[in-house]
Amino acid sequence: MRAVRCRGPRQETLLRMLENTLHHAERPDDLIIYAGLAKAARNHDALSTTIRALRELDEDQTLVIQSGKPIGIFPSGPSAPLVLMATSNLIGRWATAEHFYELERRGLIMWGGYTAGDWQYIGSQGILQGTYQTLSAVADEHFGGSLAGRLVVTAGLGGMGGAQPLAAYMAGGVAICVEADPGRIARRIESGYLERATESLNEALAWADERLAGKAPASIGLLGNAAEALPAMRARGLVPDVVTDQTPAHDMRYYVPAGMTPGEAAELRASDPDELVRRALDSAAEHVRCMLDWQDAGAVVFEYGNNIRAQAASVGVDAFRIPIFMERYIRPLFCRGLGPFRWVAASGDPADIDVVDDIVTREFPDNPLAGRWVPLARKYVRQPEAPGLPARIGWLAHGERARLAVLVNEAVRRGDLRGPVAFTRDHLDAGGVSQPLRETENMPDGSDAISDWPLLNALLNAGSGADLVAIHAGGGGYAGYMQSAGVTAIADGATASTGRLSAVLTGDTGIGIMRYADAGYDTAADAVRRSGLRWFE
Amino acid sequence: MRAVRCRGPRQETLLRMLENTLHHAERPDDLIIYAGLAKAARNHDALSTTIRALRELDEDQTLVIQSGKPIGIFPSGPSAPLVLMATSNLIGRWATAEHFYELERRGLIMWGGYTAGDWQYIGSQGILQGTYQTLSAVADEHFGGSLAGRLVVTAGLGGMGGAQPLAAYMAGGVAICVEADPGRIARRIESGYLERATESLNEALAWADERLAGKAPASIGLLGNAAEALPAMRARGLVPDVVTDQTPAHDMRYYVPAGMTPGEAAELRASDPDELVRRALDSAAEHVRCMLDWQDAGAVVFEYGNNIRAQAASVGVDAFRIPIFMERYIRPLFCRGLGPFRWVAASGDPADIDVVDDIVTREFPDNPLAGRWVPLARKYVRQPEAPGLPARIGWLAHGERARLAVLVNEAVRRGDLRGPVAFTRDHLDAGGVSQPLRETENMPDGSDAISDWPLLNALLNAGSGADLVAIHAGGGGYAGYMQSAGVTAIADGATASTGRLSAVLTGDTGIGIMRYADAGYDTAADAVRRSGLRWFE
Ligand SMILES: NC(=O)c1ccc[n+]([C@@H]2O[C@H](COP(=O)([O-])OP(=O)(O)OC[C@H]3O[C@@H](n4cnc5c(N)ncnc54)[C@H](O)[C@@H]3O)[C@@H](O)[C@H]2O)c1
Ligand SMILES: NC(=O)c1ccc[n+]([C@@H]2O[C@H](COP(=O)([O-])OP(=O)(O)OC[C@H]3O[C@@H](n4cnc5c(N)ncnc54)[C@H](O)[C@@H]3O)[C@@H](O)[C@H]2O)c1
Repeated sequence: MRAVRCRGPRQETLLRMLENTLHHAERPDDLIIYAGLAKAARNHDALSTTIRALRELDEDQTLVIQSGKPIGIFPSGPSAPLVLMATSNLIGRWATAEHFYELERRGLIMWGGYTAGDWQYIGSQGILQGTYQTLSAVADEHFGGSLAGRLVVTAGLGGMGGAQPLAAYMAGGVAICVEADPGRIARRIESGYLERATESLNEALAWADERLAGKAPASIGLLGNAAEALPAMRARGLVPDVVTDQTPAHDMRYYVPAGMTPGEAAELRASDPDELVRRALDSAAEHVRCMLDWQDAGAVVFEYGNNIRAQAASVGVDAFRIPIFMERYIRPLFCRGLGPFRWVAASGDPADIDVVDDIVTREFPDNPLAGRWVPLARKYVRQPEAPGLPARIGWLAHGERARLAVLVNEAVRRGDLRGPVAFTRDHLDAGGVSQPLRETENMPDGSDAISDWPLLNALLNAGSGADLVAIHAGGGGYAGYMQSAGVTAIADGATASTGRLSAVLTGDTGIGIMRYADAGYDTAADAVRRSGLRWFE
Repeated sequence: MRAVRCRGPRQETLLRMLENTLHHAERPDDLIIYAGLAKAARNHDALSTTIRALRELDEDQTLVIQSGKPIGIFPSGPSAPLVLMATSNLIGRWATAEHFYELERRGLIMWGGYTAGDWQYIGSQGILQGTYQTLSAVADEHFGGSLAGRLVVTAGLGGMGGAQPLAAYMAGGVAICVEADPGRIARRIESGYLERATESLNEALAWADERLAGKAPASIGLLGNAAEALPAMRARGLVPDVVTDQTPAHDMRYYVPAGMTPGEAAELRASDPDELVRRALDSAAEHVRCMLDWQDAGAVVFEYGNNIRAQAASVGVDAFRIPIFMERYIRPLFCRGLGPFRWVAASGDPADIDVVDDIVTREFPDNPLAGRWVPLARKYVRQPEAPGLPARIGWLAHGERARLAVLVNEAVRRGDLRGPVAFTRDHLDAGGVSQPLRETENMPDGSDAISDWPLLNALLNAGSGADLVAIHAGGGGYAGYMQSAGVTAIADGATASTGRLSAVLTGDTGIGIMRYADAGYDTAADAVRRSGLRWFE
């Protein structure tokens, strides 16, 4: 590892995780990492204090951070977490967007998103893998494991939606992605996430047909409006195999209405926002009606969490016949403890990630998710420049995560890597989150809104000696809608770390599968029984 | 210690804490400990599973309990908590009484109160001490440290209010307690909490005058209605020194209107509840107007958390001129890390409590709270019969708590006690709670509703190796109104426990005083500076 500034390698690793998150910032000057609001530190003062605190932190001490601002350092013990965080948690009746923004204005709070506030963000690989994972789950369930020869139609190539073309390509499919803004299309081509683009539907379909015939993957950008391009495809009798959407329907002021350019929409947004929203809702209704027609005609259709069903339903469309991806495709994975897990090389050397990737490929031949994804990711994912840290995301199940971390810790001890490896999991994980309108919608026992689970997950992480534990709640428009917990555990090669890593990562997914087993999922109950953990059914 | 059923003394101590809490149950068959709703286990099945789980729990394992139901046991490590709990936590928008009761009906949740759900309840000593503490703070601030020669007027001798006469007596004052129900008065006389009672105002005042003249303490029950008895005193030109109230004004269906007996009120509640509430509000308005008049005439008047100000305000009384006890008298103590701390003898032997009480008296001669209270408590508090555990509550400050626990651990090791001692602190403590309408009302920086603090407190407790850590939220009518955390740390005489106890109890009050310092209280900032902890101002 390069020159160490902290009093131990685990503190140094956390400092680098913070710097890495800032490296990926959408608006670095405002410390905003993504989603227009999710921050890694409350303000610049808090950031420099945090860096100072990490540098003076001893291994038997704990740094406490409240909504992005360091509070103090406590004597805690050698197997205590180095850093504990709680971010934007508000008492229920006060958990509103208005109160959140008021407290933010006063400098008392920030929102941490799922990975920004706790220094776990690794850049666009996360969303790329998540999108790939969802499409893979669709392929597994409906198309025998591959999207080869299958047409995926979607829209929106923005900050998150931009991952769709490459994800579909990696899953073997042919994607047509409708995007209203030519600038966004250009950016995706530049980054290599999109192969080529056109504003001609004929041309897009011709390119698609050619690749579909050869069962070869393709990613095609179609400049246009989803509310017009999708109905135009339907008018030709076309029925795609898979349909979803990532237009910004969570906020209709940013959904471009049919017949307008993004520039015209922006003007109307400034001059008459109500009129813009009215038109956008009309367009979204048409957009969703087309999705419903395709669903009735046999296509696999799902919402990707942008709330477009609720928008269309508000103007009379029977949109909730469309399932949401989380319940339909991700929850079955959570029931087995499978969720987005990451490994980050503190050394900054991409070769360290290769070492871990090799271990994953060798040790988990039966894990279809990581087994398929890791080779693809090695080929397609560009690692960031320093001070960004090379990283890999891969969905590993209960048991696999603990085993990998222990193996990597041994490899670090042997000197096979140039530095420690930080393991983190997303707040979006089996035990990590309660969000009744998304991750925990429609739980079979009705426990959607019970947030005991992520809190227990965090307490267990802290008790078993994770390096960093964070409890987040929703900020901005998400205030009052979610509770989540994140964790980072570091393989620094120390002997003591073996037991710690094993305990943290066993408990972490163990409580997750028990949460779903307790809610009534049989696959989760099976996973718990196979785990050998003591469970009180 | 008597025969041990568990695999270690700490597990056995937690089991006894659970049994002790159940011993004090208001409705044992329903596992309801107090407040008509606060439970120690979700149901009888969950209770017997919990007992089984505690008996099979190893010292390097952690039992996880969700809203009173044990979920599983996880490998965690020798310095991890033995038990972790999260109870009735709900996502903000769903944190309502209605949703809570629906989930309770489905058997998915329970409310834990401040001490019931996490097995920390020690019976009525807690409320006795809390009431004494408040009256002592009043005495310190307004009457040079004693209520001798001072008249306290209050009402309500119910489950909690019944502590008032003895608490006022212990603080040296003369209390007149108005109570509408003769049965309640009889019960308080029987338990020794009340000296004598009458239904004659003349007689009550004569008794009071006699004692006031000799500066001797007295507790006097006056059978009557507060909304009539208080105005009758006012009509005679009487101005008490201290006025408060513990009628059940939090729920006006239980406030007995003027002119009715409790039986008549119960009949009207059944036949025409709206009419009952209307009359009760009229009476409460008159009751509060009298309190305001006395405040204007120089009496020290405060609300004791029963919400009577809001009720009177709802019918036009300028009631919020009356301060609430928490902000006025308790918060200054929290700023120094002083709060309700308890020690419980797992052996069941009251002599063990005497040993701890002696250490407290010897070691903390400068602590005015414990120094005054402990001798009084030894005299007036009856310890419960087995399986109830002898216990003591005493307000110790930051630093004192850790020091006491370490000294007691040494005493246990030396064999000065017959068993381990469990230290617990109330959720009502500096770092333990966010409740914007009570404990954290009117914070100087406006951070009343930020619940990061109790969550951080719980994470720090878990990380430093407490034996039991619990995160609670409000249930029933409190749903959406609070978030809190509780902790238990056990002195079992083991060498390893010394460091653990010191870390847990240093961090526990340390984060508390930092919370108040961060909010802008100078006394808290001073306490933090004196603590020697690293603080990022
Ligand atoms: N886990 C999840 O639930 C999850 C994951 C990814 C994305 N999402 C959701 O997907 C949505 C997109 O996220 P983003 O960060 O990419 O948003 P963004 O605002 O960065 O991008 C949206 C894109 O859609 C385009 N667009 C707007 N209206 C259009 C229309 N009518 N037709 C075609 N294109 C149109 C815009 O030009 C823009 O490029 C959000 O609602 C987000 O919440 C959810
Ligand atoms: N920490 C706190 O904030 C705190 C602490 C203690 C009590 N309290 C509050 O104090 C109130 C009392 O608690 P409790 O458990 O003793 O309630 P309870 O229901 O057990 O007892 C209330 C008593 O008041 C009597 N009463 C009702 N109306 C009356 C009237 N008009 N005049 C005279 N007596 C009347 C009843 O007969 C009953 O004995 C509650 O609102 C409680 O929340 C708050």
